Amino acid sequence: MTKLLFKSDLDRADLWASALLKHKPDLEIEVWPSGAPAPEGDPASIDYALVWKPPLGVLKSLPNLKAIFSLGAGIDHIFRDPELPEGVPVVRMVERGLTAGMTEYVVMQVLYHHRRMLDYRAQQRNRVWNELPFVASWDRRVGILGLGQLGSDAAAKLAGLGLDVAGWSRSPKDIPGVTSYSGAAGLEEFLARTEILVCLLPLTEETRGILGAETFAKLPKGASVINVGRGEHLVEADLLAALESGQVDSATLDVFAEEPLPESSPFWDHERVIVTPHVASITVPDTAAEAVAANIARIERGEAPANAVDRAKGY
Amino acid sequence: MTKLLFKSDLDRADLWASALLKHKPDLEIEVWPSGAPAPEGDPASIDYALVWKPPLGVLKSLPNLKAIFSLGAGIDHIFRDPELPEGVPVVRMVERGLTAGMTEYVVMQVLYHHRRMLDYRAQQRNRVWNELPFVASWDRRVGILGLGQLGSDAAAKLAGLGLDVAGWSRSPKDIPGVTSYSGAAGLEEFLARTEILVCLLPLTEETRGILGAETFAKLPKGASVINVGRGEHLVEADLLAALESGQVDSATLDVFAEEPLPESSPFWDHERVIVTPHVASITVPDTAAEAVAANIARIERGEAPANAVDRAKGY
Repeated sequence: MTKLLFKSDLDRADLWASALLKHKPDLEIEVWPSGAPAPEGDPASIDYALVWKPPLGVLKSLPNLKAIFSLGAGIDHIFRDPELPEGVPVVRMVERGLTAGMTEYVVMQVLYHHRRMLDYRAQQRNRVWNELPFVASWDRRVGILGLGQLGSDAAAKLAGLGLDVAGWSRSPKDIPGVTSYSGAAGLEEFLARTEILVCLLPLTEETRGILGAETFAKLPKGASVINVGRGEHLVEADLLAALESGQVDSATLDVFAEEPLPESSPFWDHERVIVTPHVASITVPDTAAEAVAANIARIERGEAPANAVDRAKGY
Repeated sequence: MTKLLFKSDLDRADLWASALLKHKPDLEIEVWPSGAPAPEGDPASIDYALVWKPPLGVLKSLPNLKAIFSLGAGIDHIFRDPELPEGVPVVRMVERGLTAGMTEYVVMQVLYHHRRMLDYRAQQRNRVWNELPFVASWDRRVGILGLGQLGSDAAAKLAGLGLDVAGWSRSPKDIPGVTSYSGAAGLEEFLARTEILVCLLPLTEETRGILGAETFAKLPKGASVINVGRGEHLVEADLLAALESGQVDSATLDVFAEEPLPESSPFWDHERVIVTPHVASITVPDTAAEAVAANIARIERGEAPANAVDRAKGY
């Protein structure tokens, strides 16, 4: 019998259980109840953990754990645990539902800023019929920070729409139609040409605060910024200052250092900022369960799981 | 010497002249001044007309006209002339700038309704952090009315993003990933499955008023409607009633029977309607001049021009 421990205060355990059983009917699923300090069953019986923001210090108490699966694309919610067991692979969620959802959101927001929809919506409120200058797609330069699973797909789809797309990542990537920049030197050049900047980086010590004054100053004046990475990528005060000065013209923020976004946040009623409540993409239980079941099968065959985190890199 | 007559009150003659000369340096360009009742030069010297809303009855006075080029995708602004010369081909504007712009706009608006951004924007105004139900791309059914140059490209790009896309046209079309419906019987079935409806039809006697009560009633309740065809496709009162009843949940309107949209229009401050001032797509002089020059070359070689209107069909 294979046993999986499910722990999330955000995801519906019933949907996940039925999706998982569809792909692995012999799986036993233990749901760690919300609020309980520890799982209820025998810790030694747990083979796998499928988690979102697991309480600190508990994963190390499961002596036979073979893998820790993240319920979302990010894995920082797992690595914040200082006692995370060393030898157990941590697996990122890579599934087509999550990727398709993120690409949809990024494409929509990039086009919204590209086509100046904030200005058109303001004109509508004032009953103004006025055509704003049009920039052809091939003259619009979009830049994706981070070319992992999500960034690569968004970049490719935006390039497919005819936009002039570049991406920046730690090591060079080869994506058809997408100009690749990498490393610290590449970042300067990448930012200097980017009119619409999208952050899809993993959160690591190197990327924390990357959406800050220094980065904004390197963009062409009047750029747009879209953060769908992590709230901690953004220095909120720096973005407000850049919007104030006009260095940044507009922004879309889906993630925040504090969530839910506090009622006192100046972003809520900022007319150049679109706020969404961390919904850019959502793991779809149906397709995600398939990915998790495939990874369990891989491990049971003695293979390494796909999409495991490289702990040295931190993603 | 080949001579082209340029007539538009909306487009910049200087940009067009320089773009045309880049592709055909020996072209002589006569600009018909705004407000003048007729072109100023010798009517017999005109070989081609490149026009947007030409005054009625004037094109027939050009005895040596070899083709009439529309400055936009539509040609209804030319065919409204009851004295349009019979034997002269009328050519639609088909150029990659216009197509790319329209596809961008349609993709953006479809995703905006799909991802419930009107609701998220309303939540933002009220400082509400609340995740709305998510529909996976493959479960979202988009329908494109009209699969000409523009409709086909938009349909293909939406399908490429993973949405469940169908199209309706007079005759069946074969577009990878897009379900084709055609004819009157096909229309019923097409509408019954369409959650987000996009109108990209040509304006003909058959399509005038197609976005009316009868069509809206055949959509699933709570559908979204995007009109980027012609204002006359839409029965404005019917849309308002359908929005009122909830049969249609939201709409994007870029074109109107009367433009500019009158200040008294209820669409301006309707919270479920996005209004833009006929900017979904704009002919880009650079790429369009290339298409016009290529068509002139074709005619000079004795060939038929590409994208000529079939007068029997009306598009």
